[in-house]
Amino acid sequence: MVELTQLMENEVFMAFASYATIILSKMMFMSIATAFYRMTRKVFANPEDCATLGKGESAKKYLRIDDRVERVRRAHLNDLENIVPFLGIGLLYSLSGPDLFTALLHFRIFVGARIYHTVAYLIPLPQPNRALAFFVGYGVTLSMAYRLLKSKLYL
Amino acid sequence: MVELTQLMENEVFMAFASYATIILSKMMFMSIATAFYRMTRKVFANPEDCATLGKGESAKKYLRIDDRVERVRRAHLNDLENIVPFLGIGLLYSLSGPDLFTALLHFRIFVGARIYHTVAYLIPLPQPNRALAFFVGYGVTLSMAYRLLKSKLYL
Amino acid sequence: MVELTQLMENEVFMAFASYATIILSKMMFMSIATAFYRMTRKVFANPEDCATLGKGESAKKYLRIDDRVERVRRAHLNDLENIVPFLGIGLLYSLSGPDLFTALLHFRIFVGARIYHTVAYLIPLPQPNRALAFFVGYGVTLSMAYRLLKSKLYL
Repeated sequence: MVELTQLMENEVFMAFASYATIILSKMMFMSIATAFYRMTRKVFANPEDCATLGKGESAKKYLRIDDRVERVRRAHLNDLENIVPFLGIGLLYSLSGPDLFTALLHFRIFVGARIYHTVAYLIPLPQPNRALAFFVGYGVTLSMAYRLLKSKLYL
Repeated sequence: MVELTQLMENEVFMAFASYATIILSKMMFMSIATAFYRMTRKVFANPEDCATLGKGESAKKYLRIDDRVERVRRAHLNDLENIVPFLGIGLLYSLSGPDLFTALLHFRIFVGARIYHTVAYLIPLPQPNRALAFFVGYGVTLSMAYRLLKSKLYL
Repeated sequence: MVELTQLMENEVFMAFASYATIILSKMMFMSIATAFYRMTRKVFANPEDCATLGKGESAKKYLRIDDRVERVRRAHLNDLENIVPFLGIGLLYSLSGPDLFTALLHFRIFVGARIYHTVAYLIPLPQPNRALAFFVGYGVTLSMAYRLLKSKLYL
């Protein structure tokens, strides 16, 4: 198991592992936020979810759309759409032997931007707060993709 | 190619590769389930998809929302939201040199919980079957995230 | 850092890194396409996004659903649903020591099929263009999953 130990002794890779785990945990929190709003506002998507609130027709009134729940769901989907490329490109970028300082800068800005994006989406803050947070995270991922393809392109 | 061979000779990594492949294949099955319900119930999202069923206005009636199709789509999205963190955190956890028995326990419970989640969502089973399956899988991923950050945090 | 350098000197792994980065960048482009249609067609999901277009009630008319925007969003979600399995299974497949020629064939066909899928979805081309592109990409991922489980199954 020599190689595995050495892989995790690589500082860039350990940093990527830490930041990726943090931002994935943040994304997982969105599921809890959705569940919280569904419970407290009594807004459900499935008949079986509100079966205890009433029987038959009286339960159907809980099967509705709520602005607050939809907002959390949009934030969650936006996370998925942006964190998946970060994970894939960031993992490969980490393995391509980048400079530690540059790599840390990428990971830190991305994680900061995505946390700010969530805050701006859920409060919500006026635009362009959310748009800026989105584009900063987007730019970080593109920058890693560019560096990776520049040094390791093999088609 | 010494390192690659050795990476795949690592039992934890091989186990992760096997379980990740199984649960991703299960997630891919949701696309087929969606297509199956769209065809058999004649419910489509795009005009070009039902062009053979009728021309012009007569085809528009197939562009609708169906409970069954929406249920499969929600199950699919829930899979994405939970399997992506499992993949990212699980991969890094596997590389952090965990105990084989503990790692296998994590992977097996997660895969079992997500398969049960799909069954509970599609039949559907009464709550709290689906909620329990969700939280078991969620807890497994958080447990891996905790172990990873505890042993390898580098910020 | 010997192992990392050697990992990226592995031709299959470098090829996977290149194709994965390309297809993730393409997926990220869908966010820009969505933003473009939202701006030019003035169709928004959040009140704060169209606050500059009018105040109070007059801004609410921009909170609507638009066929064009929904089409891009469906294409984006379909990308997520298919590229996530490709990333996970493809990464593990690349590490399982496959033949370079076979691996390149898998990566190239997948990337080609997904780019064609996006073109067929956005123009849109008549069916079965999109369906074929979907199933070709789907088949490539299943083929990698099969080869991986055949050679490295560990449960």
